[in-house]
Amino acid sequence: MLWFRRKKQFSCDDEELEGVPDLVSPRGAAAMQKGSSYWESFIMCLKDPCDPKMNPEGYIALCTAENKLIQETLACRLMQMGTAVTAFSDSSSFCHASSLGLFNAREAVAYFLQKRFLHRINTSKVIHRVESLTAPLESLDQSISGSRHYDDIELEINPEHIAFGAGVNSLLSQLLYIIASPGEAVLIPAPYYATYEYDIKTLPECAVVPVYMDNPLIGPTPKDLQNSFEIAEKQGYSVRALLMTNPNDPLGVIYNPEILKNAVKWARSKRIHTIMNEIYALSVRATCASDDFQSIIKVFDNDLSTDIHFLYSLSKDFGAAGFRFGVIYTQNQKVLQALANLNIFAGVSNPIQMIMSDLLLDDEFVDSFLEESRMKLWQSYQICRQKLEEMVIPYIISNAGLFIYVDFSSLLPEQTFEGEAKLAALIESVGRIVMTPGASQRDCKPGMFRICYAWVSPALLEIAMERLSYIVLQIRRHEWGDLLLGNWTKEVTKCGTHLSSRRSTQNFSDLILQEM
Amino acid sequence: MLWFRRKKQFSCDDEELEGVPDLVSPRGAAAMQKGSSYWESFIMCLKDPCDPKMNPEGYIALCTAENKLIQETLACRLMQMGTAVTAFSDSSSFCHASSLGLFNAREAVAYFLQKRFLHRINTSKVIHRVESLTAPLESLDQSISGSRHYDDIELEINPEHIAFGAGVNSLLSQLLYIIASPGEAVLIPAPYYATYEYDIKTLPECAVVPVYMDNPLIGPTPKDLQNSFEIAEKQGYSVRALLMTNPNDPLGVIYNPEILKNAVKWARSKRIHTIMNEIYALSVRATCASDDFQSIIKVFDNDLSTDIHFLYSLSKDFGAAGFRFGVIYTQNQKVLQALANLNIFAGVSNPIQMIMSDLLLDDEFVDSFLEESRMKLWQSYQICRQKLEEMVIPYIISNAGLFIYVDFSSLLPEQTFEGEAKLAALIESVGRIVMTPGASQRDCKPGMFRICYAWVSPALLEIAMERLSYIVLQIRRHEWGDLLLGNWTKEVTKCGTHLSSRRSTQNFSDLILQEM
Repeated sequence: MLWFRRKKQFSCDDEELEGVPDLVSPRGAAAMQKGSSYWESFIMCLKDPCDPKMNPEGYIALCTAENKLIQETLACRLMQMGTAVTAFSDSSSFCHASSLGLFNAREAVAYFLQKRFLHRINTSKVIHRVESLTAPLESLDQSISGSRHYDDIELEINPEHIAFGAGVNSLLSQLLYIIASPGEAVLIPAPYYATYEYDIKTLPECAVVPVYMDNPLIGPTPKDLQNSFEIAEKQGYSVRALLMTNPNDPLGVIYNPEILKNAVKWARSKRIHTIMNEIYALSVRATCASDDFQSIIKVFDNDLSTDIHFLYSLSKDFGAAGFRFGVIYTQNQKVLQALANLNIFAGVSNPIQMIMSDLLLDDEFVDSFLEESRMKLWQSYQICRQKLEEMVIPYIISNAGLFIYVDFSSLLPEQTFEGEAKLAALIESVGRIVMTPGASQRDCKPGMFRICYAWVSPALLEIAMERLSYIVLQIRRHEWGDLLLGNWTKEVTKCGTHLSSRRSTQNFSDLILQEM
Repeated sequence: MLWFRRKKQFSCDDEELEGVPDLVSPRGAAAMQKGSSYWESFIMCLKDPCDPKMNPEGYIALCTAENKLIQETLACRLMQMGTAVTAFSDSSSFCHASSLGLFNAREAVAYFLQKRFLHRINTSKVIHRVESLTAPLESLDQSISGSRHYDDIELEINPEHIAFGAGVNSLLSQLLYIIASPGEAVLIPAPYYATYEYDIKTLPECAVVPVYMDNPLIGPTPKDLQNSFEIAEKQGYSVRALLMTNPNDPLGVIYNPEILKNAVKWARSKRIHTIMNEIYALSVRATCASDDFQSIIKVFDNDLSTDIHFLYSLSKDFGAAGFRFGVIYTQNQKVLQALANLNIFAGVSNPIQMIMSDLLLDDEFVDSFLEESRMKLWQSYQICRQKLEEMVIPYIISNAGLFIYVDFSSLLPEQTFEGEAKLAALIESVGRIVMTPGASQRDCKPGMFRICYAWVSPALLEIAMERLSYIVLQIRRHEWGDLLLGNWTKEVTKCGTHLSSRRSTQNFSDLILQEM
């Protein structure tokens, strides 16, 4: 290891910021503001993380919708000689190419979407393992991947309609820049992913108008959409797009095809775009039949016309948010043409395109990987459910996603968002647990929290749920005034430490060494 | 190989774009416009590339400032088992982290900048090969990299002042978004890299005001800067920043420290920012003493204050534009804080951060790689010089960069940019050669062309120069009217094919197989 020392205390004081007046512009100052309210709390979790043995009083983050449960499996698949060959054996990896992405990689993603979202692959043979996409070194590659079958696939999804960007948020931001004007509004069924607002407001300079629904669990009806459309117009907004997340974040529910068809039909009647974010599409849990989820691609039989735009990424289903690999599928040529220029600012590294498209073509691996993912997500979901049932705390029964949406409103000192913030602060200070508060997801009811159960190991999750359970009990037994005065962190963080500790997923090295 | 067939002719017609009126916004329509005038010509080169044996009449692109001469060396270094381990052995590779970049990678780049740009590393031992940055698998890694020495480096460059984005253009765009307001202007010494205008105008919505100089070869003096500042003010602009490229693109010259000091001093007197793009810093050619180039980091003894912002990338010096790995080094905390949020739209994939920072710490490799690069750049530069001397065509004698800037004005049918375009069209149609025209680099004199000599093999470069030489001869012998009427493509493209053909750098597989 190369050890670095700092020569001196590097200064970070604002006092130093002289010399150039108004160092940043007003929009620069606005960009300095944190997007999410619970960011500082999350950082605390990273600085002082709970470890059942080494640091039992540490923090547990339940606020991050990432799937760490299957990272080891992905890591094992990627840590092979073939990866470096796939990534770096071809000149095109090194050269600047179309900002939309390398054509071979777009072709691979078209195949992946066709197989996993459209569920239609016209081929007679089973593909065991596909060759590296780009001029592989036969001798090296074959020794790793074993026998392979070659096949001729009929592509219905046009690779030219696919582009990559540095994450769904980047592509959403660019898409709105292209289809909307500053000041125009986007409708989003609420509650919704908090960071959408940063994506939509910052570069596109658009506004968000939440769609409140009669029944959020089934999704937005034309009546719900019409209501919020009229509210937006009364507020002086011109509505430009409807943005839906399916499976839904934070609810974890899946919208049925009728909801989707009616929403698009309504959007078309208003002549606005529909943006469909299906970033959790393959994180449907084990108990759910795979056809419960239907992609917009399937619902519209791959005819998205020019107004439906599909977004996806490897961040959630593949536990690879750090790869910054987002996908847009749109049949709108103008959008693609603008993106080909705009995306120069947010392109995905070619070697990562090569590596990940090779992986997405590896049907055998993806099948077993997704199966494992579903099983693990189901297990962690069950840990939450079981404990919430014990606590008699309501939650939303759902089929997908990396989280469970929970109603802690009965515990609030007052039924306001101040009350919600007080509960969050209490849970963080005495329980050292951070969940995503409903306010940051624009829920209209105070006391709703999203528990992200896939960012921690099942062992840590169990400890967190024990801590929560203890806190719930104390809140029900005591006055809020007493709760805030008491110093009971130690007794809370003792909860769950008796549970059998399991291996954490923080580092793969131990695991791999064991396997060698 | 997985073969893909298209099911039907996918439609790409504009006629289909109905359903949603005004499908894209006005700014979306603006983003559809191509950034560079010679893009279509470059695409022709990609579609029908010259190969001395297989396709001697094909196109040769001399318009792309990328270094393909050293890609094989880089590819060999990266195609090893250690790469996949470095990239994927640690959980942090998979998780979303700070948008500024992974801390270890920022530390590695701080070390790299300190060694290669500040030229100051306080350590007693030589580093032969550094360990993987992130929890490596000892047993695997050591078998590949051999013996290693560990060392304790004193960092003067603060890793917290470093951030990564998807290329220099992305970071420049974001930096201007942060420090400038829409409508404010950026001064750039002309001629300059054509795409700056897209970077500056699109998202930041700023304007470019060229700085014309008494002597572009020595760089902008305070008088030159003051002149253009006054012109900008007369045009109603508020100037917000000065942007310089050193070594300069397209001139290939290196600014001396006094020029830099005076430019910053002048900028400070106007209370504007200085942005220094040193993307070609390590592409100084073999004949040039390494201390001929001095980075702004060294010139200001690593005290950039809050107004100097340094940009770099692996695209040019490391022949890796496809990696989209840009670096900003700024001591301005406000800029960094805004970037930490804004760069969520343009972050660099974590595995690539891991791989490339491991490489940048590998002093032994980087030393020999850069030495090889300088030597090869020098050879290709000499091929151009020699032939230009034979043609009696003036060019700029330079020390750095991947190009030579040539004065073809004596050949123009008229001394206008229309004349320049006619010459470019003739060279493209009969010579099948595409260079970067001066107009697209905002030169004020028609007839200047940038020849990028490192995107093609020396063998192809020789053929291209033979073709050019033949065309120059014909232009001097004939009337323009006759030239345009004649069909002499065949006789031009015959030129140079007699030269000993060398291996092209299009694909590494052959080379590697030979070496195995």
